[in-house]
Amino acid sequence: MKRYAGYVFDLDGTLYLGDHAIPGAPETLAELRRRGARIAFLSNKPIEPAASYAAKLNRLGIQAAVEEVINSSIVMARYLSRTAPGARVYLIGEEPLAEELRKRGIRIVADPLDCEYVVVSWDRQFTYQKLNDALQAIRNGARFIATHPDRTCPVPGGEVADVGGMIGAVEGVTGKKVELITGKPSPITVQEAMNLLGLPPDQCIMVGDRLETDMRMGREAGMATALVLTGVTRREQVESSPWKPDYVLESVRGLIG
Amino acid sequence: MKRYAGYVFDLDGTLYLGDHAIPGAPETLAELRRRGARIAFLSNKPIEPAASYAAKLNRLGIQAAVEEVINSSIVMARYLSRTAPGARVYLIGEEPLAEELRKRGIRIVADPLDCEYVVVSWDRQFTYQKLNDALQAIRNGARFIATHPDRTCPVPGGEVADVGGMIGAVEGVTGKKVELITGKPSPITVQEAMNLLGLPPDQCIMVGDRLETDMRMGREAGMATALVLTGVTRREQVESSPWKPDYVLESVRGLIG
Repeated sequence: MKRYAGYVFDLDGTLYLGDHAIPGAPETLAELRRRGARIAFLSNKPIEPAASYAAKLNRLGIQAAVEEVINSSIVMARYLSRTAPGARVYLIGEEPLAEELRKRGIRIVADPLDCEYVVVSWDRQFTYQKLNDALQAIRNGARFIATHPDRTCPVPGGEVADVGGMIGAVEGVTGKKVELITGKPSPITVQEAMNLLGLPPDQCIMVGDRLETDMRMGREAGMATALVLTGVTRREQVESSPWKPDYVLESVRGLIG
Repeated sequence: MKRYAGYVFDLDGTLYLGDHAIPGAPETLAELRRRGARIAFLSNKPIEPAASYAAKLNRLGIQAAVEEVINSSIVMARYLSRTAPGARVYLIGEEPLAEELRKRGIRIVADPLDCEYVVVSWDRQFTYQKLNDALQAIRNGARFIATHPDRTCPVPGGEVADVGGMIGAVEGVTGKKVELITGKPSPITVQEAMNLLGLPPDQCIMVGDRLETDMRMGREAGMATALVLTGVTRREQVESSPWKPDYVLESVRGLIG
């Protein structure tokens, strides 16, 4: 397998499953670092801060600096601070996202009629009241954007409702489609990863377990792509997908095999 | 204007607006009754019992018996008791709907893995927990049906989030479209109105203020249709609609004019 200057790794289903490292992942990452590769860790999950992901990776034997981790909260906060500095946001989302936004000068407002953006994310405290606030804000001219597109999040034994529910609810009452999603597979997320690595896409490979987010984003950005079969995708699904990866690997171990 | 044996009236925007009768509505209804017409009152709003609507109509000077009122809660309860007697339901909805369901032998269950149907309705106590329960139920094989399709409900000075938000949320996490909506403009609702009037559709007229629910349902059922301009629709919108009514009236007064 070809060697790349930069490796962008999805997390869940790629480097770990729940609380267990994928067998071979710690050794693979150690070997890539030994070879001098640059590494980024990329997750759509906005409900924990980057430091938690870095801590988890280290706990599982995978060396990771907090600066190497990008999740959809960080991408959204950077996107807004770049394109609408100091923007006023009505937030459907959890505290780690609010924290990222505030850190970059975005103001979270309680009054839906006093915002320029409705930012929708995974929110386990989502209520009718928040939904109705979002309706009033968007009727009043606020833009409607979201952190990531995932319908559900895998958990041991099944899956739980993710941001797809909150986006669907707001679309359902406003009759409007979400205008922008900054997380995977958006090019906004690729750009953040390339900035972090300091490399152009054609020197990097995207490694993940999902065709419609990880592989799609990598291909569209001009990166090489490697699908691992340790997560949600089975080998049979590759053939019928429009997002065929360059490599299909039993696990990340194949990157150094 | 032609006389009909049966008149099916939408409520909000047609006979009253908020807490005020549409001028001429009481006299019109009284005259229709004097002529021997049969009357049904039809609302998609599930958050109050039929008795509340009858009481409100009487308070506004419009004679109405509770048996003449059909709302989307009643239609859903009758539909389920007819097609799935004793069914077990996980409910996203408010107490008046739960009450109608229980009255007809439908069991409301708290465990999403113990239901055959997820019934989705307007629920001002909607939460993430209910959304996630609906996901688990539908993953487990439960059918996904809803009382009515309205995105919003008009209120003085604006509109508030209606069942469209709850349907959108569940569609957003399951990736499945709602299988059946029993309220307007469903033929299930027309059938309930025809049963109530004891008349065939071609002897009846549907009177309402919405093209895409009231007029559509009336036309599809083979009823005559009269659009009133006292609610959400303006005359200019009629031309471009696929649901052109037989009559466009300034108000219900035109029915006897």
